Amino acid sequence: MSEKAFQDYYPADLSHCYGCGNNNAHGHQIKSFWDGEETVAEFNPLPEHTAIPGFVYGGLIASLIDCHGTGSASAAAYKAAGRELGSEPALRFVTANLNVDFLAPTPMGQTLKLRGTITECKEKKVVVDITVSAGETVCAKGRVIAVKMPASMAS
Amino acid sequence: MSEKAFQDYYPADLSHCYGCGNNNAHGHQIKSFWDGEETVAEFNPLPEHTAIPGFVYGGLIASLIDCHGTGSASAAAYKAAGRELGSEPALRFVTANLNVDFLAPTPMGQTLKLRGTITECKEKKVVVDITVSAGETVCAKGRVIAVKMPASMAS
Repeated sequence: MSEKAFQDYYPADLSHCYGCGNNNAHGHQIKSFWDGEETVAEFNPLPEHTAIPGFVYGGLIASLIDCHGTGSASAAAYKAAGRELGSEPALRFVTANLNVDFLAPTPMGQTLKLRGTITECKEKKVVVDITVSAGETVCAKGRVIAVKMPASMAS
Repeated sequence: MSEKAFQDYYPADLSHCYGCGNNNAHGHQIKSFWDGEETVAEFNPLPEHTAIPGFVYGGLIASLIDCHGTGSASAAAYKAAGRELGSEPALRFVTANLNVDFLAPTPMGQTLKLRGTITECKEKKVVVDITVSAGETVCAKGRVIAVKMPASMAS
């Protein structure tokens, strides 16, 4: 795993995301990395990220998949273009579709591990398939269809 | 609209959800209501619920859809059974699949309005289709496939 996360290369004005922005003190600050051809991230849910006592809130799981997906999409796009992460102009992606299957209740008190596979990588569209595991159990599977950030969203 | 939200009828031990639990001081505390045959909820994103400056974080939108979906599923199940909301035994649903299409960037600074349609209602499975609007713009559409809460999750 590299030392800097994908999200650490986002420009400062694109680093306010509640899920993964370095500049969002209230957010989840998800960090994603390459692990060979796959992408990985870890997250330790806070006590308040509860669904019912003992289990992790599905909306948090969806959020982790979302941000790990768009981060992975960005990294994959840089890689496909033969460019270094963080080089200008920034290649940033947003989610067009998020689909999550909740396969098993996700226990609190464990580090959640996300693993992403780049299923499709085109210039304007990247598809990332992601598993969320607690220990040996795959608790959720998700797919993020990420599209290049529209100019209307850029500052 | 009725005065008490669906979530206000959840038993206390099922009211810790980050998205909609009355007993989660850190959470979103989403409130859902009937509006005729449809279900509605409103939410005002906080400043930290940012994706990129000016726009709402997709993970929050997914979370709102998730909790409005399971809340609507519960209410629909009570209605289908001819039972009063909150009567025992509790009819609680969890999300098996969450699918969200992000159709337009969701602006900050507006009340988001969710509207749910009960597309399918069986004893153990309820499907809810939900739109999320800011003003006149439908920013996201989601589908929640909710299933009756497994006994393994009940306390």
